[in-house]
Amino acid sequence: MHAITIPKPGGPEALVWAAVPDPEPGPGEVVVEVCSSAVNRADLLQRQGQYPPPPGAPAYPGLECAGVVAAVGPEVTGWSVGDEVCALLAGGGYAERVAVPAGQLLPVPAGVDLVDAAALPEVACTVWSNVVQLARLAEGETLLVHGGGSGIGTFAVQLGVALGATVVVTARAAKHERLRELGAAHAIDYAEQDFVEEVRRFTDGRGADVILDIVGAAYLPGNVAALATGGRLVVIGMQGGRKGELDLGMLLAKRASVHATALRSRPLAEKAQIVRGVREQVWPLVESGKVRPVVHARARMAEAADAHRLVETSDHVGKVLLVR
Amino acid sequence: MHAITIPKPGGPEALVWAAVPDPEPGPGEVVVEVCSSAVNRADLLQRQGQYPPPPGAPAYPGLECAGVVAAVGPEVTGWSVGDEVCALLAGGGYAERVAVPAGQLLPVPAGVDLVDAAALPEVACTVWSNVVQLARLAEGETLLVHGGGSGIGTFAVQLGVALGATVVVTARAAKHERLRELGAAHAIDYAEQDFVEEVRRFTDGRGADVILDIVGAAYLPGNVAALATGGRLVVIGMQGGRKGELDLGMLLAKRASVHATALRSRPLAEKAQIVRGVREQVWPLVESGKVRPVVHARARMAEAADAHRLVETSDHVGKVLLVR
Repeated sequence: MHAITIPKPGGPEALVWAAVPDPEPGPGEVVVEVCSSAVNRADLLQRQGQYPPPPGAPAYPGLECAGVVAAVGPEVTGWSVGDEVCALLAGGGYAERVAVPAGQLLPVPAGVDLVDAAALPEVACTVWSNVVQLARLAEGETLLVHGGGSGIGTFAVQLGVALGATVVVTARAAKHERLRELGAAHAIDYAEQDFVEEVRRFTDGRGADVILDIVGAAYLPGNVAALATGGRLVVIGMQGGRKGELDLGMLLAKRASVHATALRSRPLAEKAQIVRGVREQVWPLVESGKVRPVVHARARMAEAADAHRLVETSDHVGKVLLVR
Repeated sequence: MHAITIPKPGGPEALVWAAVPDPEPGPGEVVVEVCSSAVNRADLLQRQGQYPPPPGAPAYPGLECAGVVAAVGPEVTGWSVGDEVCALLAGGGYAERVAVPAGQLLPVPAGVDLVDAAALPEVACTVWSNVVQLARLAEGETLLVHGGGSGIGTFAVQLGVALGATVVVTARAAKHERLRELGAAHAIDYAEQDFVEEVRRFTDGRGADVILDIVGAAYLPGNVAALATGGRLVVIGMQGGRKGELDLGMLLAKRASVHATALRSRPLAEKAQIVRGVREQVWPLVESGKVRPVVHARARMAEAADAHRLVETSDHVGKVLLVR
């Protein structure tokens, strides 16, 4: 088969479509004939040599895919050759075929195009595991989503609204209209406005109950300041650095918490448990149309370099897909 | 009645036993004839003018007491004049009588002396709400307790062991033997040893699943370094400062969390819910002898200054009681 390889880490041109060995399904795995994958920011880091695949994961980039089951390994039940699926991957989505632990497969939700289904697994699992499972966002609460225009952001807005929360986003001004269409109650232009002040003003001084953050250190003081009493800050990215100042006095006065998580490094059993939760709690919202894949563009998988260039501009809203 | 008043904030001599008006039970309150109270570190801060009572709380220090119900206000059910009780207070324990919301009353556990029962409410509610309710310490996990010799510490050691956890403490060397008697599996002399290294060594590199911390900023980097994957750091004191450096990269790699809480400022409904939890889950452990009040000394309430001087030395193990 062919896959996007990275012979030498570097810029988008480091991505090379090349012939590689076919994957075999191990015990508990299926092989998916990939129809589409999607670009995640982690792929850009992996391309630069900064985010190596975890042990045992395929060497090629790609944290999610959609396609058709092509082979079923031993000890797999519930999936058959020919099933249309999408999957959460530890890597290897930028390829014609990929071996996946069966616990990370999801059916394509009714009403979603097979190609577009590749836009869902990573964001659905990331947002659900952090906002629902970990931070326990409740109806009537306020959710602040940083980077609202990203794949994660556009999914978090829709899921938050579907759960009955009021969602506030930070994003470039050019993306605000689209985010309001997706259900955001208030959009903050982080380049021009102080998000802490804006969140306080919008919530009558109460603050946000849950914050989903991709910035890390640079936003840590502001995020703690923007939390409500009992608030939960969940950091899932560190585009603004690793080490920040934490005001424990403010955290204590608010009885609040700071969580940081990643999906890719989790043990298989935890991933399978998250995928089960997504199938039970999120898929019905997708099938009813309350939460939709947000696809900004489709590119040819063999030209993944162009897709990476587009994602690096951060001009997109939602996901950039790679199609065979 | 008489109570310890603080006419002018300052050293232990600022505590003055003086005649004050009797409390009246408001709706939902009872008045307790106080038999004993206990010194908490927060009382020292209040005496210095740094920790004013929350709105509506009695002006006198004292966050817990034991005694006998002397009057029952309107809308109170389940308690009668003459009942022996202990209580979590927002203040006013250093007095002959105190008005308490009925939701903060607990029966004196069978087998515990009425005077000694004043050693229990604050530590039981603090430790249970943080270690069990918030951090969900599970059987087989490792709990690290900083300041193991304190009232909070001695209670946390016993509760952790009773729940099937392995408990590691930091404390002055002079207190290690007593802490091992209470069930600590490993005691670290923080003055001579690096607690991060010691915790890693003792847990074969895994780290602590839950850390109960009273130091705050000065221990924040070390605490995050000492956490296990999935670990929960709970900060309930800031004797080592408010603002510290948080390594979000390390927190994320461990999928860990930092929580900070306080008990005194919580709404009445939350306090009542904690007290119910303590009565249901902790009192049976006290009555079976698995968790006992640890009383270092008793002093006369009118001579509370001497008790404060003793607590300021930090030479005690467990609680210092104030007896009428």
